[in-house]
Amino acid sequence: MELKVIKIGGNIVDDKDALSSFLGAFAKVEGYKILVHGGGKVATEIGKKLGIEPNYVNGRRITDAPTLDLVTMVYAGLINKNIVAELQSIACNAIGLTGADGSVMPAVKRPVKDIDYGFVGDVTSDKINSRLVKALLEQGLTPVFTPLTHDGKGSLLNTNADTIAQEIAKAMAPYMPVELIYCFEKNGVLLDAEDDTSVINSITAADFNELKEAGAITGGMIPKLENAFAAIDAGVATVIIGHASELATIISGDSGTSIR
Amino acid sequence: MELKVIKIGGNIVDDKDALSSFLGAFAKVEGYKILVHGGGKVATEIGKKLGIEPNYVNGRRITDAPTLDLVTMVYAGLINKNIVAELQSIACNAIGLTGADGSVMPAVKRPVKDIDYGFVGDVTSDKINSRLVKALLEQGLTPVFTPLTHDGKGSLLNTNADTIAQEIAKAMAPYMPVELIYCFEKNGVLLDAEDDTSVINSITAADFNELKEAGAITGGMIPKLENAFAAIDAGVATVIIGHASELATIISGDSGTSIR
Repeated sequence: MELKVIKIGGNIVDDKDALSSFLGAFAKVEGYKILVHGGGKVATEIGKKLGIEPNYVNGRRITDAPTLDLVTMVYAGLINKNIVAELQSIACNAIGLTGADGSVMPAVKRPVKDIDYGFVGDVTSDKINSRLVKALLEQGLTPVFTPLTHDGKGSLLNTNADTIAQEIAKAMAPYMPVELIYCFEKNGVLLDAEDDTSVINSITAADFNELKEAGAITGGMIPKLENAFAAIDAGVATVIIGHASELATIISGDSGTSIR
Repeated sequence: MELKVIKIGGNIVDDKDALSSFLGAFAKVEGYKILVHGGGKVATEIGKKLGIEPNYVNGRRITDAPTLDLVTMVYAGLINKNIVAELQSIACNAIGLTGADGSVMPAVKRPVKDIDYGFVGDVTSDKINSRLVKALLEQGLTPVFTPLTHDGKGSLLNTNADTIAQEIAKAMAPYMPVELIYCFEKNGVLLDAEDDTSVINSITAADFNELKEAGAITGGMIPKLENAFAAIDAGVATVIIGHASELATIISGDSGTSIR
């Protein structure tokens, strides 16, 4: 059976109606499926009330010890468990996971070079407990990943949700065909960033290099696509980037940008 | 294989050293095991910073909506995931669960009679997903339950950790012999509440009634023991009540009070 790994960002998590609408579509997705959710502004808001100010170095958010506790509460507790409870109410047998649960996703604390990112984890790809994830899927469960890993020494670590999605998709590829779907706030990869209808239906590595050199693809889309091609190279069958409100048509192939 | 369901209270959870020491002993327990943890004062402290004041009616803590969010963050996030990460560091393959995960423990929101307890769940015993718990145990995992259930309609519910422990012990009893161990801050059931060495080694229902009538057993120990006898009646092999710092000797039968 095919597996779909579907990632939603913090902007969906922060918007109760958009999240409910997305989860309704997600619950209807057939076959094996995994949800990966990002953080969201709610962590920053709760952090402010707790006196935990965002800590940036060179424009990069640092995960100090209070911030790690904050994201553990908000990501693994508030966001993850409410998503799980909501999915349970619409006939989707969800189970929430951090990377520490069943040691599903071990990581190493990012080594300090120019910047000390604090409690941030780089996933140890070859130690992912893919057998457990496979067993959970075979028991009819839908894993819901929160963006936390662990170092095997007792500490949780903060890890980017896009990375979690990519790592789990790659790790499951030896067992079954895997489709990796990134849901975000645009309709896909746009030929013209100002024109939401200029979605590129399908893109190859050669297309990407051309469009990048021509300046049509810029900014945050570049690392997103580079990650997508890396996932394809690592055995993921398809990567699709599309709008979170269009999950059904992304899956039917009628919206979003396919990377093959 | 025998299953041990071991419950620790909030007082252990709040004490970092006591918790580490307990988890070290817990990780060494052989055979199937499940940990159930309580809440702790940390939730109240974080709640104060967030402006969520404890809300009591007739001396009973009420779980209003902000309190439900608070305990979801603290119990399912901060406490549960740090316990899981610490157990992973000492060779115990833990997986954290609320009652919503895999719908392991469905509940109904407590009906309003004299008091509206708010988002408090009474466990629906016959809907516990014991097959999933059995499958997790058979995969070498150690479930770590946080005291939250869910109503199947999208809401998490706050549920007493003693109750969670009893319900999971009863639900697993048809599959395997189950020992239910309540760890708390005393050495067991005491003949004299002022004398920590007056531990009753073993107690029957007849003993309990005698001691209760004689006024030797009073206060919070009465519902604890009533629950223990109810668990025995429902198929649990043994219930032991003992000190959290004595887990190894509780298990070897050298400390605590056995209820049979």
